[in-house]
Amino acid sequence: MIAVAVVGAKTPGNVGTIARAMKNFGLSELYLVDPPELDPEGDAYGFAGHAREDVLPNATETTLETLTERFHTVGTTAVTNEDARSHVRYPYRTPAELRDSLRDVKTDTCIVFGRERVGLLNDELAVMDEVVSIPASDEYPVLNLGQAATVVLYELRELTVDSYQHPDAIERADESEIAGLNEQFGALLEAINHPDGKREKAGRLFRRVVGRAHPTPREARTLRGILRRAGEYAVPPATDTEER
Amino acid sequence: MIAVAVVGAKTPGNVGTIARAMKNFGLSELYLVDPPELDPEGDAYGFAGHAREDVLPNATETTLETLTERFHTVGTTAVTNEDARSHVRYPYRTPAELRDSLRDVKTDTCIVFGRERVGLLNDELAVMDEVVSIPASDEYPVLNLGQAATVVLYELRELTVDSYQHPDAIERADESEIAGLNEQFGALLEAINHPDGKREKAGRLFRRVVGRAHPTPREARTLRGILRRAGEYAVPPATDTEER
Repeated sequence: MIAVAVVGAKTPGNVGTIARAMKNFGLSELYLVDPPELDPEGDAYGFAGHAREDVLPNATETTLETLTERFHTVGTTAVTNEDARSHVRYPYRTPAELRDSLRDVKTDTCIVFGRERVGLLNDELAVMDEVVSIPASDEYPVLNLGQAATVVLYELRELTVDSYQHPDAIERADESEIAGLNEQFGALLEAINHPDGKREKAGRLFRRVVGRAHPTPREARTLRGILRRAGEYAVPPATDTEER
Repeated sequence: MIAVAVVGAKTPGNVGTIARAMKNFGLSELYLVDPPELDPEGDAYGFAGHAREDVLPNATETTLETLTERFHTVGTTAVTNEDARSHVRYPYRTPAELRDSLRDVKTDTCIVFGRERVGLLNDELAVMDEVVSIPASDEYPVLNLGQAATVVLYELRELTVDSYQHPDAIERADESEIAGLNEQFGALLEAINHPDGKREKAGRLFRRVVGRAHPTPREARTLRGILRRAGEYAVPPATDTEER
């Protein structure tokens, strides 16, 4: 199970944003350490979307000590140390590396996010079991609290989302439909008297475009129908058989 | 080059959030279609972080037509169609698939985000060259506008970030330092008269823990020093040599 904790947030909107990201990516257990007041009419609930119905009202106020006793704790920071001389913020993992390391491990884990501007303090990070940091531009690597939480939870989705909104796979036309479309293009080349010497190349060009696009059954059928009609309606001038 | 466009946003704060995410992930070109008023004292600038200095004030107001003429346009939506019968929102790519497909293609691309609540309308999505959708929980797949943009730009970072804030690689102790640490543990087992029959197993156990943790040079050195001192200070009782 993966929980989320927010330590010392000042802005109710950020707590709501994090609750929303949790619900978007299948998490439900939210812990708040030293939280701002969360007015049901205020920004926290305003930013929480549907998480205002469950994640946010069910959030538990607690202490960092309770969290470190109960969970494998992962502190988050934008500002890491550069090398092993300082080890409060080093070594760290990226969110993707964290996901990979948790994939086959059974442990209750809590991802801990710090306050706005300064994030988690050194003495808070010091008691975490490990540290995660989002790779970002060195010109401005500090994400907003709510945005950072969204990225980390997005990256962990494989471990937390039971079922996605998307269908399992994109439908692709089967090979006979693709072949039919390519043949129809060949028939069109014939119908418009495309120069004999160029037909083979043009057919291959079309096949490659279609091949890269992986058309759906509907796309292949519709395009084939249009090419067929274009071929049937074509009345090319006799001279058109010569090289142009 | 990858640009970002926001169509019909109502909330200045979301525009600021998107500008911040752009700067976090190395993008700079922001287009606004039918934007809300962006008061320099208001939420847009308040949410933009350092992007208030460049991305946000340099944003260009434009039309969807101008964007589709100039860019390879990628529409974003949380709500896709289920199969090929409806094709305005189908097929779609995930953000990771979009990144992979753009990696070796030279094209000016614009990622287009829609208004709050309803996102891009069908007639807006219809003129886009392709569609991207973030995989999320089917219970609540609709991300907030600013959070959705943050996730997409995070996923494209490989194409847009020149240089990350992180060092290139985590320093790891070299093999001689690791071996030294493991030997020191062996010496400690001897110093505390750990039962002969169990030393080999305990040494292997320690080697495996260290092997999975990939300690930094500092971690390996510090632990080795502590184990050495523990061994030097150990005065085990004589009976301790027997099996316990």
